[in-house]
Amino acid sequence: MIDTTRSQTEGPLLLADLSSPETRDLLPRIELVLVPVGAHEQHGPNIAVSTDTISADALCRAAAARVGPSVAVAPAVPWGVSWHHLRFAGTIALRPSTLIAVLEDVVGSLYTHGFRRFLVVNGHGGNSAAITTAIEQIKHDTGVPLIASVFGYALIAEQAKMLLPAGAIGHGGGDEAALVMAVEPHRAKPSAFAPPQPTGFQIESAALLRAYGGVLARRYDEVTHNGATGDATSATPEAGRQILDGAGRRLAEIIEVVLREANAAERTRAE
Amino acid sequence: MIDTTRSQTEGPLLLADLSSPETRDLLPRIELVLVPVGAHEQHGPNIAVSTDTISADALCRAAAARVGPSVAVAPAVPWGVSWHHLRFAGTIALRPSTLIAVLEDVVGSLYTHGFRRFLVVNGHGGNSAAITTAIEQIKHDTGVPLIASVFGYALIAEQAKMLLPAGAIGHGGGDEAALVMAVEPHRAKPSAFAPPQPTGFQIESAALLRAYGGVLARRYDEVTHNGATGDATSATPEAGRQILDGAGRRLAEIIEVVLREANAAERTRAE
Amino acid sequence: MIDTTRSQTEGPLLLADLSSPETRDLLPRIELVLVPVGAHEQHGPNIAVSTDTISADALCRAAAARVGPSVAVAPAVPWGVSWHHLRFAGTIALRPSTLIAVLEDVVGSLYTHGFRRFLVVNGHGGNSAAITTAIEQIKHDTGVPLIASVFGYALIAEQAKMLLPAGAIGHGGGDEAALVMAVEPHRAKPSAFAPPQPTGFQIESAALLRAYGGVLARRYDEVTHNGATGDATSATPEAGRQILDGAGRRLAEIIEVVLREANAAERTRAE
Amino acid sequence: MIDTTRSQTEGPLLLADLSSPETRDLLPRIELVLVPVGAHEQHGPNIAVSTDTISADALCRAAAARVGPSVAVAPAVPWGVSWHHLRFAGTIALRPSTLIAVLEDVVGSLYTHGFRRFLVVNGHGGNSAAITTAIEQIKHDTGVPLIASVFGYALIAEQAKMLLPAGAIGHGGGDEAALVMAVEPHRAKPSAFAPPQPTGFQIESAALLRAYGGVLARRYDEVTHNGATGDATSATPEAGRQILDGAGRRLAEIIEVVLREANAAERTRAE
Amino acid sequence: MIDTTRSQTEGPLLLADLSSPETRDLLPRIELVLVPVGAHEQHGPNIAVSTDTISADALCRAAAARVGPSVAVAPAVPWGVSWHHLRFAGTIALRPSTLIAVLEDVVGSLYTHGFRRFLVVNGHGGNSAAITTAIEQIKHDTGVPLIASVFGYALIAEQAKMLLPAGAIGHGGGDEAALVMAVEPHRAKPSAFAPPQPTGFQIESAALLRAYGGVLARRYDEVTHNGATGDATSATPEAGRQILDGAGRRLAEIIEVVLREANAAERTRAE
Amino acid sequence: MIDTTRSQTEGPLLLADLSSPETRDLLPRIELVLVPVGAHEQHGPNIAVSTDTISADALCRAAAARVGPSVAVAPAVPWGVSWHHLRFAGTIALRPSTLIAVLEDVVGSLYTHGFRRFLVVNGHGGNSAAITTAIEQIKHDTGVPLIASVFGYALIAEQAKMLLPAGAIGHGGGDEAALVMAVEPHRAKPSAFAPPQPTGFQIESAALLRAYGGVLARRYDEVTHNGATGDATSATPEAGRQILDGAGRRLAEIIEVVLREANAAERTRAE
Repeated sequence: MIDTTRSQTEGPLLLADLSSPETRDLLPRIELVLVPVGAHEQHGPNIAVSTDTISADALCRAAAARVGPSVAVAPAVPWGVSWHHLRFAGTIALRPSTLIAVLEDVVGSLYTHGFRRFLVVNGHGGNSAAITTAIEQIKHDTGVPLIASVFGYALIAEQAKMLLPAGAIGHGGGDEAALVMAVEPHRAKPSAFAPPQPTGFQIESAALLRAYGGVLARRYDEVTHNGATGDATSATPEAGRQILDGAGRRLAEIIEVVLREANAAERTRAE
Repeated sequence: MIDTTRSQTEGPLLLADLSSPETRDLLPRIELVLVPVGAHEQHGPNIAVSTDTISADALCRAAAARVGPSVAVAPAVPWGVSWHHLRFAGTIALRPSTLIAVLEDVVGSLYTHGFRRFLVVNGHGGNSAAITTAIEQIKHDTGVPLIASVFGYALIAEQAKMLLPAGAIGHGGGDEAALVMAVEPHRAKPSAFAPPQPTGFQIESAALLRAYGGVLARRYDEVTHNGATGDATSATPEAGRQILDGAGRRLAEIIEVVLREANAAERTRAE
Repeated sequence: MIDTTRSQTEGPLLLADLSSPETRDLLPRIELVLVPVGAHEQHGPNIAVSTDTISADALCRAAAARVGPSVAVAPAVPWGVSWHHLRFAGTIALRPSTLIAVLEDVVGSLYTHGFRRFLVVNGHGGNSAAITTAIEQIKHDTGVPLIASVFGYALIAEQAKMLLPAGAIGHGGGDEAALVMAVEPHRAKPSAFAPPQPTGFQIESAALLRAYGGVLARRYDEVTHNGATGDATSATPEAGRQILDGAGRRLAEIIEVVLREANAAERTRAE
Repeated sequence: MIDTTRSQTEGPLLLADLSSPETRDLLPRIELVLVPVGAHEQHGPNIAVSTDTISADALCRAAAARVGPSVAVAPAVPWGVSWHHLRFAGTIALRPSTLIAVLEDVVGSLYTHGFRRFLVVNGHGGNSAAITTAIEQIKHDTGVPLIASVFGYALIAEQAKMLLPAGAIGHGGGDEAALVMAVEPHRAKPSAFAPPQPTGFQIESAALLRAYGGVLARRYDEVTHNGATGDATSATPEAGRQILDGAGRRLAEIIEVVLREANAAERTRAE
Repeated sequence: MIDTTRSQTEGPLLLADLSSPETRDLLPRIELVLVPVGAHEQHGPNIAVSTDTISADALCRAAAARVGPSVAVAPAVPWGVSWHHLRFAGTIALRPSTLIAVLEDVVGSLYTHGFRRFLVVNGHGGNSAAITTAIEQIKHDTGVPLIASVFGYALIAEQAKMLLPAGAIGHGGGDEAALVMAVEPHRAKPSAFAPPQPTGFQIESAALLRAYGGVLARRYDEVTHNGATGDATSATPEAGRQILDGAGRRLAEIIEVVLREANAAERTRAE
Repeated sequence: MIDTTRSQTEGPLLLADLSSPETRDLLPRIELVLVPVGAHEQHGPNIAVSTDTISADALCRAAAARVGPSVAVAPAVPWGVSWHHLRFAGTIALRPSTLIAVLEDVVGSLYTHGFRRFLVVNGHGGNSAAITTAIEQIKHDTGVPLIASVFGYALIAEQAKMLLPAGAIGHGGGDEAALVMAVEPHRAKPSAFAPPQPTGFQIESAALLRAYGGVLARRYDEVTHNGATGDATSATPEAGRQILDGAGRRLAEIIEVVLREANAAERTRAE
């Protein structure tokens, strides 16, 4: 349950802040580890290449601060599966097998110490398939009681839709730009904010296939000339703060549900 | 465009039917290769372990028969990523890396011969992450002009919802059972048809995470006692024929859109 | 022992036909699983690229039907190690590591459920090294009591030599063509039947090295102009039926020997 | 050459701060990319598990700030090869193959964009073998003109030896603790500062083998009871600032030498 | 052609004897590189674990000495695929993937320098599948004009059958023991020479499957109690010298055929 | 302890000399296995490509002969990580992953039999990173009580510095040439002995980075025109014998320290 006596300004519990004996002592009371996974990839002229890492990490911190120290945050994975953005300067792309190996090692190590529940908070859509593969393999190989993922951007877009014009939602759009303005202002580039420049390439096919649970493999330069699909021009820091606050609250609620059901399942097994 | 002069009873073009010189001669007129990917996994007491292979393959054949010989069907991959069903007897599970390697080899070989467009038709949800990874890697590594996937079960469920009670939709449910009754009757087990036996395990968590683009890794024995989540008792061969007919038509329509846009994109590049 | 009371027309036991509970119930009485491995590769103008899959699968079914339900047939692997045929259109080639991974996953899954004896029936010579590696690794890694392989084409050629002229024996030759005519008539192309067009390339070297347990790595286009090394023109469906009947009987006899010795060995261990 | 007109308080150029078009525009003037590689591993009771990431990153920033915007800093790798610390709670260990894959992907992506010189700044001794392997493979596979590594801790210890007692130098010792106090004060734990608790295990062997270019594989719990080999009790933030300042200056000097020689070599090749 | 003016006592050309400039100068006249692959595995009480390396290497040297300096010998691979002997002390077993990687690296490196024809001379039957896979992959990946293998033991057994009783032929038998006595006398153990102690385990199955191109995976401790299947008691150094002489002559003849045909094929291509 | 009653002329205990039963009987008294790892790489005009294998193996034999039969020598790995020498004819280069796999298999097999302590004696600097990775992984994966490495060339150079001019020390220099003259005289090429031809390429950078625990990735043709960095002209067989004698003695002393401490550690654990 969310610790309502806890000041919301108190910071989240970060594994990186702890010494080894501190970790050992806190471990029995940590019910969930959040693992933020970001990207280092182009977001058009509007925001820095670190956007998805910023958003995944900020979301984890916001939710963990709300829930209290029963939830800890692991160091963020600062790159992801971004092969489709490689024709835009600055993008760093992990092979899917590399990201899977990283998650196996990170979760596997923490599982060794006694952590038992993990939620990967993913800041970049291109990571989803690799993360799903990783957590299913970890579940199968280790038998970890709980491992799951959530797409952080879905939480952000949900909030942004209530605050920004529809055209703002999208890659490098006002939703992401607002959040960056709120969290790491120097990584937003308001003087370069521009609307997206979609190419119109195979739009209907992509939408149809997606609607039926599939995917059309496309490089992002086939999709948009300037690298963005959302319009950043409506972004403000204040909108970013509200997005982060709302998305953090929603993630905290999800975590509560997950932990409540996991505790119930454990009690059932124990009986 | 769908070849309307073509008799619908005429069979689909199967790569496995062709000799090498026949393939070489037909190759310039084949605009798309469908690659069915199935599974060999438990579907409760209701239907055989080959259900997802049957449905992926039947769907490809139905759509290819409609569109005509500009679309060819590759041999079906008869197993998939089914680790979560391994505690039910009979399930065969490929590691995700194995399925990715198979798709790389199959598509890579066909690409060598000059085939240029591929649509993976996936019969099993557990395959989605591996298929997405595979087609994106193939796109990145080979530069193939068009590679995409569609989740065949989404096409089937869409039809089934119009024909069967809501409870029939689900793993091993009436939707899948009806289709098997229509296509491979001896692989449906009407005398054993039974409603599902859900465990209620972490249902809300799983739904919430899915709604936000994530996944909760669960073994299927954690989810349902008898291996099914849909109720097969309402399945009939006639419903199966209608489902297959409707889903095949829808897939043919999707293929038409994909090819139309791909041709347009190619003309643009050529200009 | 072969179940002589069993009608020969009764079909073989196919794993793909069974539901999971049916598999669980039959499992204790299944003494051996046959795993057919085929290929999707050019066979000259004479027969379809699926020839080796057809023959491996048909051989397994014929033998399993004879022996009775103590022998089950797994779904056929529909491609194999065919790199050397890739310059002929239509060929699909798995890397050896892919085929090894597939066999590890298929046999490994079935072993998990309690199956204990496996015979890989190989339809394509190019698969032999990968299959040998796979079954030895599986034996070493899992300790499975019995895993073995047999080259199905050796069984077929043995029969064909008694029925067809010597020149008919060979890749894409009358032996294979006859079998395809008997089992999947539309995949034989009698109107295109032609004698082979050998190149004469390094014939003596290849024969000498083979005689001394070695191999000369050659692409098939270095060996034959039209992709065949056997003459298909003498093939008939009737010869195909006799070949399959004889080869199936021989395989059933081999299976009987293997099971008899395995049972004896098990009794010895138990004492 | 170090840009002496540049204010030292001006920040370093971080790739994560840039948008894609900014990266593209700055790229021609960026002569070197620093890639910090850290660890997430126990450092006794004295400092947080993120110590080596902090030190590698701080060192890169300090040197890059001095040299000016011809040197850019990539996002830090926040974990490393720490298998030997896994028996101390909190440690995250990458397999060597995972770290190698990460470096291949990070450097490979940047090389794609046109970056041509890379210096990996390693904060953790356990990473050295994997980093050496990675950079040699990258050199061999891509032909990148310049890729090198430096062990950041060697730069830090060199400074610390001039400021702290000899016993302070070592894993989790005063040298590292001082630097953490200066850079991320809340990750130092002065109230828990303690002298090391060496076990005396195979000390002479390890020293002898190291002196002759070898290594004795030991888990850290075989080496020290409390996880530290240096005495943290003498650490102060002021010493940390001086260490970082001195080590940053030294790294900037090394960078200058490397770039000077690389430029000379390039001129020679061009002639 | 065999250089008949060359004294037979002159030694074979070994790559390991050459400096780099010597290699560069001789390279244009070296028509074939022999790559001996051995094993380090138990051969019963009769002979040392290095037997198969000794025989593969001796055979290469004998043939190369006969043919003259147009044939060079690479350093022997001193271990092989011997998992089935691991229950006998002293055996070292490479995984098949390791042996394949070694051969890829050795042949790949030599191919880089301009060597164009390779013959792997295999001393151990357990290596055959891995060697076949390796040479086919190398052929496919590099397009090397000629790569082949021969099973050296087949050459040895052919000679031994003319000199020793039938029971002497086999693993650790008189054929191998005689050769070791002739080449590395201290690695034969005449005082321990003993007849084999076969277990009789699945003999008929193994023979039948082998006759039909298959294999029964067996550990050697399932096959023979003392690790040998041949009787060493009849071995003499003189027989060993004759075996080596005859087998070396035969290998030289094979090499001549291979080179003659390869030269003819090259002339054809050049025309 | 060194067995002082043992004649120094008695040979070292080589695993390759033993039959399987001999290995089984000696195993309980063998306290350490030495694993020599060499290279097959250019050493300028002065000495053969097998130099590093010769020196690693000779060093192991010399030390093992001194210590007596409590130390055994495994067969030498005859190639290593030599990618940087590939532009000089004759060099064979293993990928680092291949060398790691070989060491895992060799040590893993011996560990299976009951050997418990391993010292890798490395003849080639380019192998160091791969060997370190291998022995740490083996330690982590198997828990082997003792696994370590030593750089044999460091032992050789230490002796050579006392006997030869400073310029003689280096790759392909007088130190290595002398040793080869002493051990395998026909693999030294005195008539071609020449001083090195350094290019002067990035010398200061390389030295600085090395001084701070790093490495500059360079191909050897960037470093020296004739492949050598040491001057071979002062080499004599007598110097070689003294170098080998001194280095062998030093290695024996190191082994004694390692075994003494390992025995002490074991007694402590047993108490």
